[in-house]
Order: sequence, then C-alpha cells, then structure tokens
Amino acid sequence: MVTTSRTPRSRPWRSASAIPVREAREWQPARVTATRRIPLARPYPSVPWGDYAPKAYASEAVPFGVTAFREGHDRIGVQVRLTSPSGDESLHRLQPLNDGFDRWETTVALLEEGAWTFRFEAFADEFATWEHAADLKIAAGVDAALMREMGALLFTRAAGERGRPRSQREALTSAAETLRNPAVSDDAALTVVRDETIAGYFRERPLMALTTVGDDLSLRVERERAGVGAWYEFFPRSEGARTLRDGTIKSGTFRTAARRLPAVAAMGFDVLYLPPIHPIGTLNRKGRNNTLDPGPADPGSPWAIGSAEGGHDAVHPDLGTLADFRAFVRAARAEGIEIALDFALQAAPDHPWVSEHPEWFTTLPDGSIAYAENPPKKYQDIYPINFDNDPAGIYAEALRVIRHWISQGVRIFRVDNPHTKPLQFWEWLISTVNAEHPDVIFLAEAFTRPAPLQSLASAGFQQSYTYFTWRNTKEELAEFLSGLARETADFVRPNLFVNTPDILTEYLQFGGRPAYRIRAAIAATAAPTYGVYAGYELYENVARPGSEENIDNEKYEYKFRDWSGAVERGESLAPFLTRLNEIRRAHPALRQLRNLTVHWSDDDAILVYVKHLPGELSPDGRTDTIIVVVNTDPHSVRQTMVHLDTRVWGVTPGDPYDVEDLVTGARWTWTDHNFVQLDAFAEPVHILHVKEQR
Amino acid sequence: MVTTSRTPRSRPWRSASAIPVREAREWQPARVTATRRIPLARPYPSVPWGDYAPKAYASEAVPFGVTAFREGHDRIGVQVRLTSPSGDESLHRLQPLNDGFDRWETTVALLEEGAWTFRFEAFADEFATWEHAADLKIAAGVDAALMREMGALLFTRAAGERGRPRSQREALTSAAETLRNPAVSDDAALTVVRDETIAGYFRERPLMALTTVGDDLSLRVERERAGVGAWYEFFPRSEGARTLRDGTIKSGTFRTAARRLPAVAAMGFDVLYLPPIHPIGTLNRKGRNNTLDPGPADPGSPWAIGSAEGGHDAVHPDLGTLADFRAFVRAARAEGIEIALDFALQAAPDHPWVSEHPEWFTTLPDGSIAYAENPPKKYQDIYPINFDNDPAGIYAEALRVIRHWISQGVRIFRVDNPHTKPLQFWEWLISTVNAEHPDVIFLAEAFTRPAPLQSLASAGFQQSYTYFTWRNTKEELAEFLSGLARETADFVRPNLFVNTPDILTEYLQFGGRPAYRIRAAIAATAAPTYGVYAGYELYENVARPGSEENIDNEKYEYKFRDWSGAVERGESLAPFLTRLNEIRRAHPALRQLRNLTVHWSDDDAILVYVKHLPGELSPDGRTDTIIVVVNTDPHSVRQTMVHLDTRVWGVTPGDPYDVEDLVTGARWTWTDHNFVQLDAFAEPVHILHVKEQR
Repeated sequence: MVTTSRTPRSRPWRSASAIPVREAREWQPARVTATRRIPLARPYPSVPWGDYAPKAYASEAVPFGVTAFREGHDRIGVQVRLTSPSGDESLHRLQPLNDGFDRWETTVALLEEGAWTFRFEAFADEFATWEHAADLKIAAGVDAALMREMGALLFTRAAGERGRPRSQREALTSAAETLRNPAVSDDAALTVVRDETIAGYFRERPLMALTTVGDDLSLRVERERAGVGAWYEFFPRSEGARTLRDGTIKSGTFRTAARRLPAVAAMGFDVLYLPPIHPIGTLNRKGRNNTLDPGPADPGSPWAIGSAEGGHDAVHPDLGTLADFRAFVRAARAEGIEIALDFALQAAPDHPWVSEHPEWFTTLPDGSIAYAENPPKKYQDIYPINFDNDPAGIYAEALRVIRHWISQGVRIFRVDNPHTKPLQFWEWLISTVNAEHPDVIFLAEAFTRPAPLQSLASAGFQQSYTYFTWRNTKEELAEFLSGLARETADFVRPNLFVNTPDILTEYLQFGGRPAYRIRAAIAATAAPTYGVYAGYELYENVARPGSEENIDNEKYEYKFRDWSGAVERGESLAPFLTRLNEIRRAHPALRQLRNLTVHWSDDDAILVYVKHLPGELSPDGRTDTIIVVVNTDPHSVRQTMVHLDTRVWGVTPGDPYDVEDLVTGARWTWTDHNFVQLDAFAEPVHILHVKEQR
Repeated sequence: MVTTSRTPRSRPWRSASAIPVREAREWQPARVTATRRIPLARPYPSVPWGDYAPKAYASEAVPFGVTAFREGHDRIGVQVRLTSPSGDESLHRLQPLNDGFDRWETTVALLEEGAWTFRFEAFADEFATWEHAADLKIAAGVDAALMREMGALLFTRAAGERGRPRSQREALTSAAETLRNPAVSDDAALTVVRDETIAGYFRERPLMALTTVGDDLSLRVERERAGVGAWYEFFPRSEGARTLRDGTIKSGTFRTAARRLPAVAAMGFDVLYLPPIHPIGTLNRKGRNNTLDPGPADPGSPWAIGSAEGGHDAVHPDLGTLADFRAFVRAARAEGIEIALDFALQAAPDHPWVSEHPEWFTTLPDGSIAYAENPPKKYQDIYPINFDNDPAGIYAEALRVIRHWISQGVRIFRVDNPHTKPLQFWEWLISTVNAEHPDVIFLAEAFTRPAPLQSLASAGFQQSYTYFTWRNTKEELAEFLSGLARETADFVRPNLFVNTPDILTEYLQFGGRPAYRIRAAIAATAAPTYGVYAGYELYENVARPGSEENIDNEKYEYKFRDWSGAVERGESLAPFLTRLNEIRRAHPALRQLRNLTVHWSDDDAILVYVKHLPGELSPDGRTDTIIVVVNTDPHSVRQTMVHLDTRVWGVTPGDPYDVEDLVTGARWTWTDHNFVQLDAFAEPVHILHVKEQR
C-alpha cells in the first residue's frame, strides 16, 4: 500500500522555478568518457555513507543542487528533472549560487510520498551568452552590427519554436526586426538587449544547445510525520498508579493511562512514545536507583524484556491485555495522537527466547549466557542478541515482532540502542517493513559516535536522537543547528528530545526553570521534530549524585505526579509547551528542517536564528518567517544588538518590517540591526513572526 | 609499453603494515543490502568530482583510509588489499586514527607504475576483543576464570592454524597451558594477557571473523616525473639571439639554445619547458608590450600559432628544423633534462587549419571567424577552436599533433588554458594518449575557479598550475599547502611555478631580492614539483604599469640576459636555486606531496612546516625529516618562538634532537619549542634536516 498526501489534480511539487518539459539530447565522443559535454558533479540531495537513497518527508522543502560549469565564458543553464512516484515529470531551473564554486541550486517542496527520481541537466544557454556579450560590446561600440544580427537570428529561431505562445512569437519577431532595422540606433538596440520581458521569455523557455543529462538519482519521500512532530514520552504504568492501603503500589494500566491522553493532546503533542510494554524479567531484576537487590514490589526496568508471561510480542499483565492496548491506541488516535512503541532487541534471562532459541545469544565456555556489558561493567538483567549464530532466525523473529505490533495499529517504533546491533540488520529490517508499510517510522536512539549515528540514519532510520542535549552554549548550538539544517539533512532527521529517562543534563540540573524554558523553545522551533519526557514540565531536576539522570528514576519505579495541581500553582511548564506547539502548528516555517539560518548578536549567550519558508513552497502560498532570539544563559539578563541578514526573507537591508512576539504578543518595528534585552528569569526567548509587507 | 621502476625481485610496495595474505569471506542476508556485515564507508584515495580514478606517482607515499566500525564494543581490524598492475597482491593493516570518526589509515609507497586495484577488508578481531575484556576483568576480579579459559581457547585455535610458524605455535600452546593452570594466579595470568610477543603474533596474523570485503577500487600510478621535478622555462629564441650590425635581431635557434642546457642542468633542473616552437602568425601579429602595430622585425607571440610556414606540427624556421629540435631533445636528455612542449589549441588567422578546416572555428553571421575574446576585450591574433561543429575531426587532429611530438621524443606537454576547451575532450585525449604511452605527462595551465581546476586534474591531467603565486602570507600559505598535501592530493598534483611570462605578482614586484629567495625556498620544499621561468634568478621585477606581468614581455620580443655575469657580480639567485635542487635530490622527504604538516610560531609572518618520510617508506630505508621555517615578510627581521609537534617524526615532546641548516650549514640542538630569528635581508629561511637519533 502506497499512501499519498496528494489529491488527484494537484501538482506533485511546489517550486518557484518550474519550467516546461523539453527533450534533452547529448553528444558523446566515440571513446566513452566519464565526463559529459557539460560537467555535472557533486549532486545533492546525497548520502556520503554508502549506496543509500537520500530522504525527505512530504511537504519538505528540499534543496536540489549540483556543480556545473562550462569551458570558456559562454553561459549555461541547469535544471533538475523530477519524476514523482506516480510518474509526474517536471523540470525546475536552478540558480547559480555565485559562491565561486560553480554550484547551482533550487528548492522544491515535494508532496507525494514514495520513491522519486531526479536528474540534473545542463545546457548552453545561447540567449544568455548573446545577451552578456551584446550588452557589453554594443555599449562599447565593438561589433555592434554583428551583435544585433546575432540577436535577430536567435529571436527568429525562438519565434519559430513549436509550443511558444503566440504573444511571445509576435514580440520576438518584432524585436528581431528592430535589431535589424538600420534606422534604429545602437543605443536604441541596447534597450532590446536589456528588455526584461524578452529575457523572461528565454528564462522560461531557453534556447538550449549541448544539452547534457546527468545520472538518474533517487530520493525517498516519507510521510510528513517522519519529519514533523511533537513527541511526548510517558511510562503507562505510572499514569494512574496508586498506593494501596497496605503500602504496596498498584500499577497504572492502559485504561488509567488513557485518562492522561486528553491532557497530552491539549498540550499539542502529536506522538506519544511508550517505553517497552512487555513482561519484565524477574531473574536479576533491578531495584530502585539501579540497585541489584530489588524488593518484591519493585517493578523492574521495562527494558529487561521477557518473562514466563511472554516476550516481545506480549503485553505486561500489569498494563492489561492486547485488547486493552489496541483500545489505548484508538483512544490516542481519537485525540490526534499516534503511539510510538519501543523496540529493544534484548532479553531478560527469563525471556522465552532464552530457552527456545539459545542460538540467538552468546554461550560462554562455562555454559552460561553472556550478559550485556561494557567491561568491567555488567548489566545482569539483560542478555544481548547474537546476530551471527542464526542470522536468518533472529532476522525473521524481529520482523515477526514488528509485524505483530503493526497489526495492533502501531506505525512508529523508537529503537533502543540500535548501534549495538548490526547496521546491516537495520537496513534489512527497515527496508523490508517499509516495502510492506511505507508509513512505518523508526526512530534511532543511537547516542554514539558520528559515523555510526549517521550511518544508521543513512541506512533507513526515519529519525535519530542527536547530541542536542549536550549542545547548550550559543556557539555549540549555532554550529549544531546549522549542521542539522544543511550538512546532514539529506540523511539525518533529528528528533530533539529535551530530556529522556536516561538524560538529565547538568544544564537542566543547575539552570533552574529558565533552563527548561530555553531548551524547550529551541527544540520546538529549531527542528520540525522534538520531544519531551514526562516530568520536564514539572522541572524535575534532581539527579542521582554523579550521574546525568534523574534520581529515583522512573525506569525502576512508579512515579506519582500532580499535573493539574502544578498548573494551578503556576509551577508547570505545560502552558508554555502548549503555546510552543500552537506556534508550530500555525507556522509552516517551523515544520521545515533545512530552512534554518544562523544570524548574529554581539553577546556570547544570545543565539539568533531564522526559519523562513517562501510562499511558493508553503502550503497556503503565504511566506512564513520566524526569528528566534534566545538567551542561552539561564542565569542572566542580557542586552545586545542583534544583526540580521534580512535578504534571507526578501527585505532590503535597512528597510523596516514589523514583528510580533508569538509568546508575549508584543509588537515591534525591526530593521537589520535591533536592540534586544532578554531576562532569563522572565522570558528568555523571543519567537518573532515577521508580518507580511504592505 | 608499460614502464616500471621495479626490479624483478623487489616487492611492489613499501609499508610498515604489511601482513600475510589470507582468504576473506563474508556472510550476506537473503535480501540484498547495501550495508555489509562490518560497514566500510568513505574510502580513499578517492576523487569527488566524478567517476575518475585517483592517482599517485611511483615512490609516492599514499595514505589509504576508510571509515569502519562495528556495533557494540567488540574490536575490529581493517586491512587494505593491494593488487599491483603485474598482479602482486599484498595486505596492509590499517591503524585507527582515534579521532572520534572511526577512521582507519595506513600509508604505502607504491613503486610499480600502472593501474593498481585496492579494496578494504574489515574483520572482527577476536584476540583484541578478548585482550581488552580480559585485561579489565581479570584486574577487576570479574569472571577471571572464564576470561582465562576463553583466552586458552583462542590461543589453542591460533596454534592450530596452518602456516603459523612453529615457534609461534609452541609459544601459543604454552601460553594456553599457563592460562588454564589453576596453580597460576590471576595476577600471573594477567602477564600472559599483556604479553607483547603474543599480541604481536595476533597483530601479524589475527583471528578473523565476520570478514567484510569492500568494493574493488582503482588507483593510477604514474612515473615519478609526473609527481617530482624541478622545472625551468625559457624561450629558445632568446637563448643565443643577437643584435646584428644593422640593428635587427637574429633569433636564437635550437642550436644556440642548446648551449644554455649545461647551465640549466647545473642548477639542478629536471624539466625544461619551451613555449610554443611553431610558426607564428603574421596576420594581426602583436608588437612589443602587446601592442597592435608591430614593426616588421617583431617576432610575435609564440602562442599565436600557425602561418603559411605550418601549424602545430611544424617548427618555426627561425628556430631550425625538426631535426634540430630532435637534436635539442637529445642534448637535453644527455644533461638529464626532459623537454616539455607547450600544447596551445588555438590558431593564428593564417594557420593552415583556418583555410583547410573552417569547421573547427566559429563562423559569425557576417562570414568572419570569431576571435578569442573576453567581452569587450578581443585577442585579434588568435582564433579559438570550436569543438562542437566537427568533434570527431578536431579530436583526431589534436591526437595526431600529440602523437607527432611524441614521435619526436617529447613525453611532457604543458597545456595552455585547458579550461577554455571541453573537459570531456581532455579526458578523451589524455586517456587515449596514456593508453598508448603511459609515460606521457600533461600539465594543466588552468588559472581558473576551483571546480574546473580540480575537475581537469581529476579527468586526467598529471599536473596542475595552482593559486600558489597568489598565496603569500603565512596564513594563506598554511591553508594552501595543507590543502595541497591532504584534501586534493588524490587528484591534483601541484606544480608550484614561482613566476611565468604571464605572472609577476605584486609580492615579487615590491618584495625585493628577499621575496625571490623566500618564494623559491617555499616552492622547492613544500611540493615535489616546482618551476622557475628564466629571469627569476636575475630578480626581474619591473611590471608593465597596472599589470601583473613583466614589462617588455618576452612573449612579444627577444630578451638578452647576462647569466654568468650576474653570478660573478653576486647578483644572481642561481646559486641558491642550485642549492635548493641539491637539497631536493638528497632528501626523499622533499620528493613527496602528502607528507607536509603545518606547525606553529608566535609571529604572524613566520611560517613553519615539516616534511617527514619514515624509513619504511623511504628508498634507502632511512627516515628523512625536514623542518622549514620561513619569514614570509620580505621587508623585516623577525624573532619568534617556533612550536613543533615532534611526535610527527617520532621524537617525544620535550626531548632534544639535532638539526642542521642545509642552506647555511649551521647546527643546533632543538626541542619542541625553539627560538628563531630570520632576517629577510640576510637569510629569510631555515631548511633544517633532523639528524638521526643516537
């Protein structure tokens, strides 16, 4: 089944640079060369990590670019030919970036999901070559008659082309006559050379020669949720858990957790991610705060999957039944929320796999099965999978588990530690699943080195956790966010979780409430996908001493949280998160990945970036521009000048424009240099919407 | 004919990392994946500009590298399998760069010319994985017995391998017994884990699993002169030209020019490049200083090729006959000098091509043939070639001309303005010529933007002129030289000409004699190929006003120079050039491209770099290290501290070592931080040889 967000009559792309289709041909010398007549090199979107297709999501504005040049001084044109999965073909003209590196680029928003193909084509642009020479030479009084005759010949040829509108043909014929008319002075002829209307005819429909066709390349376009979403994470066992009279705790269930769904939806979250919902091992179970001697009531870590009650395809009896789970998925869907399940390929010692398939684990010379470890540390409640004893068996079992949850209504999987399993396995699993269900999304929790992180993303993961939580200063963020938007955007789609059950950074531990506000604002506006783990809105900031994670961690125990009481007491970030998600829904520029540009301030803590989406790439045809100014120092009040390259959104440097702060409602008239004061203790961030020009 | 610099019994490579060959196998899942069991990505040497083979020259030390990693914590090994053109196969182990990017590298000096293939192979290194775990765990008292038994099993397996020397088998068997012996304490067992001899056995011959084989890649290895040489350029018509009694000038000839060869050889130059030697057009001939009204005795520009006396295959009658040219080539060869001819694909208006093949030019609507131009500038003495009217014809003619000069003994061509001809043409021409004559070298004079410059180099040119003349400050040179040595070295081989008939930079115009000394020292030591155009040694530094080239330019007239008189008066740079070329011949580190590292000084004009060649990559097996310290400001005396990372050449930071200044003979004992004073007016450069350690 191929899902598509297109209606039958709409075009499969948005672009400012579309031009009509024409046939391309190319001459080749008798001896085959790798070089073509007009060199085309370094095309993008592209993936440097191997033979993988770059990716985009439906409605994403994607830069298509290539290095192209010709010998000598003659002008060239470059276009990209896009073929949509259902066969629509279109041409989009590239513009030179004029950066000295002969790069050309255009940006197209792709609307249809599936496998697109694209190829670059370059051609000698005869009009542009003539226009450049004629302009200089007629003005200099050199070869004027010759230039006029050459122009007349070009215009006459263009006027004779099939398919050119009659009005253009008449205008071109008349212009040719003017150029040839000896009664017309050279100065007057120059106005024909410089005629913008005629130049427009040739931009729209150039006279092409030496046309060179690049290789067919592919681009995978996935559903919009693969790229855009606000994620929330909670442990269902905590939602509705209660202490009984005997002091023991009764676990929350899917039914009690479902009562929390309207509040999550009201905050504006689209995806709810659940840690593993399967039976938890009893052998070597961990106690509170990761201790090795649990009490009988300790529920254990959900990542220690499997017990006599079942494995990866089962539901923990404390949470309810498979039917309860399906009802939970439906209840979430009714609130506009998709459920993301955890996929953690590992087993507790009492997982059924261990007795039924010991070949999926590593048996040591003493007959025991190897625990997970990072020598000399050991994780006694978890057996890692061995993928090499019986690859066919474990591959098939993993696929069976995924298919099982798909059949229960799940379309998103958050994959635990994918970098501890073979990359090859993930490519195989995701491509196999996506061949059957292109709408399934996998999020990689790969907190690892850049090469494996980017390789996992390249090999198929639709989304990736990133180093975001460890990028906190202005300088770190400027480099990190630019990198996400440009260098890695063809293959890594970031999901900027602000916290996780494993990650409570020093910045949050010691930054106070302003820190939580700052990080949420950046995550929600810098990238189209971000996430929050429950408790963030309550500013939970006490770490286990010496660690980077919460004390009394929810991984090992139930948490009781007074959500509505905190809001009533004004001690919750939920209203701010709600506002952030409202802003994201109202502003398509914030639902894009590649449109971030970093701008400047004179202060070493004030970070400035712009998210801009031109009207021709926007769903409603309206330009959308958001300026974010953040004080990244949560302990200070800062004043500074902010410097903006307003040309990014089409405002001439120095011209005024109006902005509205979408958080406070304040309005200002700004220019390219603006004074800003940001008080971390009051409101550390401006999220400014540039109002449309009159 | 395939030339080779190998003797029959020598190995076709030098390397510190060679290991014996063994069979590699790889498991593949049923569904084909682009990913292999152990990911291998971003291999190099490589060319980013298209489907071209990277290149090296015989004796060049080439880094082979790849990004490789495995899931989890287990250790891997990586090797590169090299197959020489004549079929020798060898394996070379890579070392991790430990830069956080999972890159592995080894450097191999390739001795055999021709098409090499290389491929990377990665494997699970079972010994290294065990060694790491056993070391930590036995020391921590965790699983000691298990670790000892696992080691014993590994050692026993290794001892049973075919081909392992008896001494190793005995040592391994004995070590296995020690590990298993309950009377041996864990502490004593640890000494076996840490035994360097045993570790060495496994480094040499690892226990491999999950072996993954990368793609077969190719590398073109050309003769050493393609990468190493000291070039000299002179106009033969000036050498031996004399003024007759009637005031007219009699041109120098090949015979008179040959009298200059011993002096050029004595300076230590290897290649003599001659501007075009063909008949010069008379129509629209240029006069002195590029004027349009030549006198009857003006000889014209040699680049305005062709007249009634012949075209690209003819010799200018003023210079002599084809037989005289051959004699000149032989005389040069006798002096150890190769002749490089100019190949300028363009025609004077009276070139025979113009009447015989008007289709090779562009005929304008007024019936005239287009001049070369850069609108509105025109070059009336030159018609550019049109490659698109009759590609087959002009391709064949270009090949015929090259073959003609090859038949006259020429093996090096300096190509004039290749960026004004199609890149595709050059790929075709060079590959066609090299298929017949692999020893032919083409040097690209492409002073153009980076994309076409690097593409020409990638498509086949053995050497390239570069932006060197315009990189004069410390900062510019540090970035430029690092880039040459690393980023572009797989495809661009620089020829660092210090001046040309077209280029007399402001630095030389206004830097006085120190500027000439500084630039020659850098060119001769930073890259293995550099060049000097005659007159440089006489400090000719007067430019045509407002231009960047010599006044009274030799392109348009004869030059008379008093070579030996200048030496006698102490007004010649020739002795210094001679010394530079002696140093280059004595030091193999200076005949390498990729071995340059930039180091540091506290002064903004003192540039520091090191050229280092380890003994295992060196022709005589001896390590060669040269430290160059240059004052790039020709108007100053500078004092500064110089900071060196001595680990580059194996000296522990802080340890002393002896250096000798190869220019002055001075000797010092240096460490990693050294005081330097460089007086531009006396000796602006240290070229220091690091003496072998005792």
